[in-house]
Amino acid sequence: MTSTSGTPVTRLCTHTLTSLHYREADLVEDLLGKKTFTEVMLMQILNRTPRGVDLRITDAVLVVLMEHGLTPSAIATRLIYMSAPENLQGAVSAGLLAVGSSFVGTMENCAGLLDRIGAAADPDAEAMEIARHYKGLRSPVPGFGHHLHKPVDPRAYKLLDMARAEPELAGHKVRALERLSAAVDAMAGRPITINATGAVAALLGEIGVPTGVMRGFAVISRAAGLVAHIVEEQQSPSGRFIWDTVEHAIPFVGASGKPA
Amino acid sequence: MTSTSGTPVTRLCTHTLTSLHYREADLVEDLLGKKTFTEVMLMQILNRTPRGVDLRITDAVLVVLMEHGLTPSAIATRLIYMSAPENLQGAVSAGLLAVGSSFVGTMENCAGLLDRIGAAADPDAEAMEIARHYKGLRSPVPGFGHHLHKPVDPRAYKLLDMARAEPELAGHKVRALERLSAAVDAMAGRPITINATGAVAALLGEIGVPTGVMRGFAVISRAAGLVAHIVEEQQSPSGRFIWDTVEHAIPFVGASGKPA
Amino acid sequence: MTSTSGTPVTRLCTHTLTSLHYREADLVEDLLGKKTFTEVMLMQILNRTPRGVDLRITDAVLVVLMEHGLTPSAIATRLIYMSAPENLQGAVSAGLLAVGSSFVGTMENCAGLLDRIGAAADPDAEAMEIARHYKGLRSPVPGFGHHLHKPVDPRAYKLLDMARAEPELAGHKVRALERLSAAVDAMAGRPITINATGAVAALLGEIGVPTGVMRGFAVISRAAGLVAHIVEEQQSPSGRFIWDTVEHAIPFVGASGKPA
Amino acid sequence: MTSTSGTPVTRLCTHTLTSLHYREADLVEDLLGKKTFTEVMLMQILNRTPRGVDLRITDAVLVVLMEHGLTPSAIATRLIYMSAPENLQGAVSAGLLAVGSSFVGTMENCAGLLDRIGAAADPDAEAMEIARHYKGLRSPVPGFGHHLHKPVDPRAYKLLDMARAEPELAGHKVRALERLSAAVDAMAGRPITINATGAVAALLGEIGVPTGVMRGFAVISRAAGLVAHIVEEQQSPSGRFIWDTVEHAIPFVGASGKPA
Repeated sequence: MTSTSGTPVTRLCTHTLTSLHYREADLVEDLLGKKTFTEVMLMQILNRTPRGVDLRITDAVLVVLMEHGLTPSAIATRLIYMSAPENLQGAVSAGLLAVGSSFVGTMENCAGLLDRIGAAADPDAEAMEIARHYKGLRSPVPGFGHHLHKPVDPRAYKLLDMARAEPELAGHKVRALERLSAAVDAMAGRPITINATGAVAALLGEIGVPTGVMRGFAVISRAAGLVAHIVEEQQSPSGRFIWDTVEHAIPFVGASGKPA
Repeated sequence: MTSTSGTPVTRLCTHTLTSLHYREADLVEDLLGKKTFTEVMLMQILNRTPRGVDLRITDAVLVVLMEHGLTPSAIATRLIYMSAPENLQGAVSAGLLAVGSSFVGTMENCAGLLDRIGAAADPDAEAMEIARHYKGLRSPVPGFGHHLHKPVDPRAYKLLDMARAEPELAGHKVRALERLSAAVDAMAGRPITINATGAVAALLGEIGVPTGVMRGFAVISRAAGLVAHIVEEQQSPSGRFIWDTVEHAIPFVGASGKPA
Repeated sequence: MTSTSGTPVTRLCTHTLTSLHYREADLVEDLLGKKTFTEVMLMQILNRTPRGVDLRITDAVLVVLMEHGLTPSAIATRLIYMSAPENLQGAVSAGLLAVGSSFVGTMENCAGLLDRIGAAADPDAEAMEIARHYKGLRSPVPGFGHHLHKPVDPRAYKLLDMARAEPELAGHKVRALERLSAAVDAMAGRPITINATGAVAALLGEIGVPTGVMRGFAVISRAAGLVAHIVEEQQSPSGRFIWDTVEHAIPFVGASGKPA
Repeated sequence: MTSTSGTPVTRLCTHTLTSLHYREADLVEDLLGKKTFTEVMLMQILNRTPRGVDLRITDAVLVVLMEHGLTPSAIATRLIYMSAPENLQGAVSAGLLAVGSSFVGTMENCAGLLDRIGAAADPDAEAMEIARHYKGLRSPVPGFGHHLHKPVDPRAYKLLDMARAEPELAGHKVRALERLSAAVDAMAGRPITINATGAVAALLGEIGVPTGVMRGFAVISRAAGLVAHIVEEQQSPSGRFIWDTVEHAIPFVGASGKPA
């Protein structure tokens, strides 16, 4: 919020000659050696002291979002690292730019649907309306289906089981996802797997992460995954091989439509 | 490493229709609900099962690198977020590009000096040689001094005390930093504080993080810090205020040398 | 397009041991010393030999998009350059990430409206519908109004006059913008200026740039503008001043709501 | 430079309610329709009115740096665009991060050598010393050799011929490159081609571009090249094909060293 004068303020961090505070906490006295990275991260993002359940859910979400092998983000990071090895942060930044609406960041799209279902007078009708809408577009419902994991995305079911086992969670987002899943299956006439981003949307929603913030968890987690790709690139470079492979696989054709 | 055929390989992640593995571990069976984000991150980056001490040191390092208020990286992230709010990952990426040789990523510069001292036949002479070199350049020794924290950087001393309290750590990097500190003080004729990045260099070195990888920990941690800045920006925007403030503070002058 | 086998192909560039081709053109024989940067850029982006009018319009658009002083993108570039001066491309990239839906890249939003008007059975009714829609949202129509240039954005009127003076242009996008302008004025009950991005949308549309490509021209032009900011930063650094100014202008407040 | 008060100033751009100035020039009155993009870019970067020769050399340099097919930067841009198509600027920014010390931005490394030769009391001895140094490192001299263009890089010789044909150029940088070329050949015992980045370093030096600014020209030019790659990606997507090809080409192996 802003002060009465309209000047914006920050509540995240302040420092003096002799101390540094993260919100109300003294970094040296209250945090170092006492709180984990996940704990302080949630304290800063959610502006509250995280509970044990918040940490368990967040760690699971961050672990599941960290890696999926040689993805577009990992390939981009490896190629940029080869080109500018003096600039590790640039290679990670390049890969993070892939956390968009089509991959990795997609939990936002599903979370928006869960918000709609949660706010609807008739949640089941809203879920069916959503399923019908995407069928009309001939496009998958965000949070459902996976081009690699068939018939089911094992990550999704494990994450949902973890959430169901947490008595402190209200369960409303998980139930909204279950409603949407039933509607998606009915509309398809066969079971469609819930995927990891669907489950991540439900779990982050359960611990109170706003939909517009969820993509940030993918960015944080993927940053760690991409650093591991850079370490592997330092030990066994693949960048030149990727370059040669792609250049060879995609031929040039001239206006004639024939290879030059 | 590469296979005998010269084709690069990856050891980070593989997936089948029904499972996903991070190195040797089954994501669903072995990691979700059993390992924290910090634990899996270290397993991927260091290619070994982290010990308790590795987690304690890494969490402390990540927490200390997360925030320092309205830094260049946080200001850049807030401005980019205002300009392209549909693109949270772009705002974080912009801020991460500040993790360079001058700020945040500076632990690399200090770690390189600790490596030299550790490898020297006469470590104290090497430390003195380094201190003399930077005095000649009239520039601070990487890892020493701080323009905001005077006379001492409380973060540095806390981190070093944590490392000294860990019997499993060899202590060679901390001792190298102590040697360098003694040389820096002797050269200056007064005590110069060890700063946080100096301590971070020593601690990451103690748990076996190669110097060329250290900057990655700043990137991961700062990504979390920048997401918190975006959340605050969503709640109380400062971007327009920053723009107006900077534009007003830096006048235009024409070739005449006079304001237009 | 893709080959019959489904393998993608490229038509942009190919090289042999002794030559390099951009599309059908031999770089050394046909382009170097014979074609300008703007000319080759358009040939590559539009896949046709640009006419004189295409070059005049494109140069005007690129010049107008290059600079607007200490904008969010320029401030971000200067701060990132201060933090990682070894990495000029990172500083430019950070600033380019500001070319989004809210600033600089906004011509896309306006061009989409011009496309709608051009495709409508009753263009004037469509324009009025658009104006009514945004009035309902209490938000400005993309391409209209400017917080700095009042009552009129002189860039917009100059660009439109240039387009009107080109007999080879069909004028359909300019007319669509004029229709939208009349509707916007009628809805507001007073004249609202067309702004530079509105005019840019019309001009790029007149030379056949698809709406989804227009943002690219802002990226190219702003890259040049940001390089000039870096040169000025090299000669008279402002990064530290910006940092101190912003940090001082935005106070920290604790949970109490009072400054710490 | 900064004002007497130490407050930084800018000389690049200023605006009023009714006008916008780029340095001393009125954008609407003096630039639009009168100056090309290349012309205004140089005026802003070099802070002087460019001559015809400056434009000819700059256009040639920008054209030669624009494209080299499916390079790491183009591949990264295509992959990021597939992942976040709503965010064209992010895809270009990702590719630009490849303009580093190893590719594209390498003219800086060569320009630094030309600066040394130009400043040396005995330029030929300095050139030989440089050639000897790199031979000792078993690494190519920046600006010499090319892994794709053999035996000669045709771009380099064309660019140098263009510069030699310009009577207004002093020729000192071209001569320094010729001296270095003679030394490189002598040290190798066979002719080694001057490459495009070597020639670019000499040409930009001839028109007075400081070595520390040269990489910016690669960034500007490559931005245009990458926009063309995005347009091709919009028309015939290759991102998914690249992803599948790379993932299939680089096998996972477990700790056993055997494929999983």
